[in-house]
Amino acid sequence: MDKATKRTKFENTWARIREELVDHVRSEGFPPEAVEWYGKNLDYNVPGGKLNRGISVVDTVEILKGAPLDEDEHFKAAVLGWGVELMQAFFLVSDDIMDTSITRRGQPCWYRAPGIGMIAINDAIMLEGAIYFLLKKHFRSTPYYVDLLELFHDTTYQTELGQLIDLITAPEDHVDLNRFSLDKHRLIVLYKTAYYSFYLPVALALYMSGVPESYTLEGKIVEPYKVALSILLPLGEYFQIQDDFLDFSTPPELLGKVGTDIVDNKCSWCVNTALAVATPEQRAVLDANYGRKDAEAEARVKEVFEAVGVRERYTKYEADVYKRLVGLIAGIPEGPERGTLKREIFTSFLEKIYKRTK
Amino acid sequence: MDKATKRTKFENTWARIREELVDHVRSEGFPPEAVEWYGKNLDYNVPGGKLNRGISVVDTVEILKGAPLDEDEHFKAAVLGWGVELMQAFFLVSDDIMDTSITRRGQPCWYRAPGIGMIAINDAIMLEGAIYFLLKKHFRSTPYYVDLLELFHDTTYQTELGQLIDLITAPEDHVDLNRFSLDKHRLIVLYKTAYYSFYLPVALALYMSGVPESYTLEGKIVEPYKVALSILLPLGEYFQIQDDFLDFSTPPELLGKVGTDIVDNKCSWCVNTALAVATPEQRAVLDANYGRKDAEAEARVKEVFEAVGVRERYTKYEADVYKRLVGLIAGIPEGPERGTLKREIFTSFLEKIYKRTK
Repeated sequence: MDKATKRTKFENTWARIREELVDHVRSEGFPPEAVEWYGKNLDYNVPGGKLNRGISVVDTVEILKGAPLDEDEHFKAAVLGWGVELMQAFFLVSDDIMDTSITRRGQPCWYRAPGIGMIAINDAIMLEGAIYFLLKKHFRSTPYYVDLLELFHDTTYQTELGQLIDLITAPEDHVDLNRFSLDKHRLIVLYKTAYYSFYLPVALALYMSGVPESYTLEGKIVEPYKVALSILLPLGEYFQIQDDFLDFSTPPELLGKVGTDIVDNKCSWCVNTALAVATPEQRAVLDANYGRKDAEAEARVKEVFEAVGVRERYTKYEADVYKRLVGLIAGIPEGPERGTLKREIFTSFLEKIYKRTK
Repeated sequence: MDKATKRTKFENTWARIREELVDHVRSEGFPPEAVEWYGKNLDYNVPGGKLNRGISVVDTVEILKGAPLDEDEHFKAAVLGWGVELMQAFFLVSDDIMDTSITRRGQPCWYRAPGIGMIAINDAIMLEGAIYFLLKKHFRSTPYYVDLLELFHDTTYQTELGQLIDLITAPEDHVDLNRFSLDKHRLIVLYKTAYYSFYLPVALALYMSGVPESYTLEGKIVEPYKVALSILLPLGEYFQIQDDFLDFSTPPELLGKVGTDIVDNKCSWCVNTALAVATPEQRAVLDANYGRKDAEAEARVKEVFEAVGVRERYTKYEADVYKRLVGLIAGIPEGPERGTLKREIFTSFLEKIYKRTK
């Protein structure tokens, strides 16, 4: 099955899941305007993204099975995938309020949509609640139900911790580059992005596929969830560093959007890399111009980025991390046994990311 | 043990629980300013309330045991109690933003405290996340762990649904009494308040005490969680109706605060009772004056409340509901067996509420 067909098949499961959620509220005797509101919240915020996280759950379950999924398996994997997408929507709706963002996915942010306002906070929390409703409905009788619940809990908490450090490190209205560092950047990226975008989808698929906490292969004890974490965290870090670099380096017509990390005072890999090697003069330029809503200030920051060699440093970082990840993946013991890790889970992620240009 | 001692004993467990939460964040390698922020979030928002919900978990576990709790039992019950208080804090911090409230528990609402702002949204969600961290730490190896998780999930979702109908029924800035009705009021009260304030603490205590889903006593099959729900939902409704009535009827010097339901366009029992029996003239007065920030408008609404007999109707409601609840409680089969319902669980709630004046 090609990528577009997979995507369509995943998207087609949304209608049923959405109906289950809305039906429940209807059946509890809620007034029509509340049922309608909840439906609009779901429609506006959940299905319109790239869906990479959700689809990767289905992909991973299929790789672990080593054969096409039947309808029931596909639907269950898709429920978990939509769980990740609901979690993402929960974060985005609330983050947009905290960041006072204007648009998201080509439309006004939900809290700025007509008649919504701060009710968006409750709506975001209801998107989170929908995850546990769906897990209860579809996974309650499975032996791994409690693992799924804990995984969603832990990942949510990690992401909120990442969001907290990001918010207090890089508030949009107060620039203080002393708060920044590559270590801080790494912590934010791992907690705010890597756990939920990379580890969560794979770990969900491992649980659904009955992969145990540990097994022996080629005479080695393998702890598959720990192995997955040890690869997917640096992979997620790579993804975000690349995202930061593309925001700086790629022209809008190629990137598909205008990069705003510099004017938005983002704790980006680029500024942290520059800060780590800047001369006192370059540092003064960064202090005076970073995070200002001003095209000239932005241009001066970019000059420093060029002067300290952010491009070359990125090229070197990418070559190094790629090599390291290839090595880590090659080190996974693999056999024909069902219920064990497959290297392809990780290579499929890596090849989607490596040298992407947008 | 008297009430004040019980309260102090419950309060004293907070320091340990708070440290567990903050220690976890510290041990993950988060920067000191994030650790400190989280500690302040916990200190400001969790322990300063009346703590009735949290203490009622401990009380109920003790009633079910029929003997004083040992240190370990008390601490475990207190963790569940603080879980309810964390949930309450999560709702209050986010509701205060949605309602643009000014003060809470005698201090500025968290989002209005210096330097906080919209980060309060993430802080609220972290208070929710803390519940699952504590449950995992202290209850993971118990046979009722998954019951606790589902109970918190279900109750959170119910409360958010109640908050949603409340928000779209009675927005502070748009008065439309056509949206109000006693049925709507009932739905809001049950979902927004009764489940989490009354059913949740008791059900947590039942699980912790090993009370099964059903048992046979005096030849009858008893489903204790359903029995608890059938009493605690009307009890919670009574509590809220009383709250609404006190807001209207009790002078500030007795109530301990100024009632603002009328000027805040609240979907209160009083206005719904008045709407149900008002003449067209009285209805016109309510339409013209309800929800206005204006003492004269408020006085005119109060005149209508007096004219339609809201006081007498409340007195009758209270007598009727008290009698009904006493009957329901008396109908619970009770024996000396461990792990079965005790009527005292419910009478202790009822006697705290009946004829309270503030």
